[in-house]
Amino acid sequence: MGKPKKPDEFELISRYFAPLAAAERGALGLEDDAAVLAPGPAAGFVVTTDTLVEGVHFPPGEDPDTVAARILGVNLSDLAAMGAEPWAYTLSVALPPDWDEPWIKGFAAGLEAEQAEYGIVLIGGDTVSTPGPLSLTLTALGRNADGGPLTRSGAEPGDEVYVSGTIGDAALGLKVLTDGIAGLESAHADDLVARYRRPRPRVELGRRLVGLAHAAIDVSDGLVADLGHVSDASGCAATIAAPKVPLSDAARAAVALDPALRDLALTGGDDYELLFAAPPSGAAAVRNLAAALDLALTAIGRIEAGGEDGARVRVVDAEGRELSLADEGYRHF
Amino acid sequence: MGKPKKPDEFELISRYFAPLAAAERGALGLEDDAAVLAPGPAAGFVVTTDTLVEGVHFPPGEDPDTVAARILGVNLSDLAAMGAEPWAYTLSVALPPDWDEPWIKGFAAGLEAEQAEYGIVLIGGDTVSTPGPLSLTLTALGRNADGGPLTRSGAEPGDEVYVSGTIGDAALGLKVLTDGIAGLESAHADDLVARYRRPRPRVELGRRLVGLAHAAIDVSDGLVADLGHVSDASGCAATIAAPKVPLSDAARAAVALDPALRDLALTGGDDYELLFAAPPSGAAAVRNLAAALDLALTAIGRIEAGGEDGARVRVVDAEGRELSLADEGYRHF
Repeated sequence: MGKPKKPDEFELISRYFAPLAAAERGALGLEDDAAVLAPGPAAGFVVTTDTLVEGVHFPPGEDPDTVAARILGVNLSDLAAMGAEPWAYTLSVALPPDWDEPWIKGFAAGLEAEQAEYGIVLIGGDTVSTPGPLSLTLTALGRNADGGPLTRSGAEPGDEVYVSGTIGDAALGLKVLTDGIAGLESAHADDLVARYRRPRPRVELGRRLVGLAHAAIDVSDGLVADLGHVSDASGCAATIAAPKVPLSDAARAAVALDPALRDLALTGGDDYELLFAAPPSGAAAVRNLAAALDLALTAIGRIEAGGEDGARVRVVDAEGRELSLADEGYRHF
Repeated sequence: MGKPKKPDEFELISRYFAPLAAAERGALGLEDDAAVLAPGPAAGFVVTTDTLVEGVHFPPGEDPDTVAARILGVNLSDLAAMGAEPWAYTLSVALPPDWDEPWIKGFAAGLEAEQAEYGIVLIGGDTVSTPGPLSLTLTALGRNADGGPLTRSGAEPGDEVYVSGTIGDAALGLKVLTDGIAGLESAHADDLVARYRRPRPRVELGRRLVGLAHAAIDVSDGLVADLGHVSDASGCAATIAAPKVPLSDAARAAVALDPALRDLALTGGDDYELLFAAPPSGAAAVRNLAAALDLALTAIGRIEAGGEDGARVRVVDAEGRELSLADEGYRHF
């Protein structure tokens, strides 16, 4: 039997991508030179973009629906960090020579599931070939909330530093995939890998932090590095207590087996939780929000006045002694 | 002497990309999770995105300022085809292992020159590494004109079909670079290559066609294919006369040397001229616009009612006999 003929660009768009754009009239069925969007509310909108390259940002051979969840998730996480409501996105797909139609079909199905969950719609894109690895670039638009956006730059001395969910699972999951973690039971290993593979952007949390948090960021480069970004942007310093950083059962099990993994949890990337600074007067509101969302929001430290050395982040132990960590977070190259 | 240390991502952004974002306060210095834009005018805005891969969409080793002009140009051309005013863009750069800082510096300088010419500003992006070739994805936002956007779908039977500038130069320029055109004098070859390398998006023309043209598209896939897109979207057919299609002196010289190159001129891509349909009542306005812009706007045929076979494009000779062309335009893969 001959190899099945691959669809051309126009067939790919009409079969797999145009259905994802059906809910937004301004996408013009992906058939025009650009999409047309009506003006947003008075507060405007936010724009973010992220690129993922196979073998760099996700493992070669990753399931297409996981890749779809990841490229949408990392961008939705940026919208969440701004307190914005997901709205619309463009997607560029650069396909390597060995692409096949079932992969595209699975990828589109993954996008569709994410669209339904987060209320975002495809409005345009590009499909090209590359001799290199599969590469995806997504640009997401979000509607800015009244009182928004949340930025990195509004933290004030005295603010509590909070994180959502648990920290370090994704970096530990990548460790499981690359080197393994000796002695870790398989259910815990699976939990960590699942967190690495599929970001769960904290979109609803971000929206509800508008008016409550002074500053926010999503934890993508690593907890310490991202708190550093907030401190830098706000002209402050910050101190967090390592024992207060919330770890999942699986992460605790990993750190119990190899205490050096604690540093990886604190500095590794890809958590896609939100880190935010809120004044002490907001503590009850933060507690209520955690209960309403059924999501842990844990106070891990404080924003402080910037010293003479400029902004910096200190991580201390239970006795308040500064820890020296093994890494400083993810750098893209 | 040791190899100079390459800047990391944050240094690249602060040195080369943040200055390109200085004019738009909502870009937040490229230091936050997303850019924030104020609402557009009542007519809203348009969004388009295009990806270029080295070795696929431009020759390996291309000058960085030419690459900058090309990635901005192809997107600005899409804004032009919608009649939109350039506003802001995000840019993702995937750098291969052998990237160097002088290349980035030249690329940023090229972007700066284009920004100044077309009134568009960088508001965000991503910088990643790839084991594959240099890849760029740009997403451009344009302000929709009152009465806009121009789309592909508004052409009506009886409309004149016009093109701006000259057609086929870019495809012939690529031919010069790949196979050469035997006997073509070097000044002509240089002209064609220059047209291939640097798109000149017809932004001002696009804006001034709002309210005058019924439909528009930029000629990127090739004249015949792009007229096909307009015909399809409008539910019409179209006939154009090959002898009326405006060719540059250089293109005429090439076709004189090798008559088979006429088909390449009519079907080759990358011209980035505008093709538009306007009613006969607008003929004087089109002439006035051509004079005002000092830009040829040439009537090359007519929109017709779609036949039973659905939309199609016919190309005829001076005697009205249908021509059979050697190609059907650029496909991305």
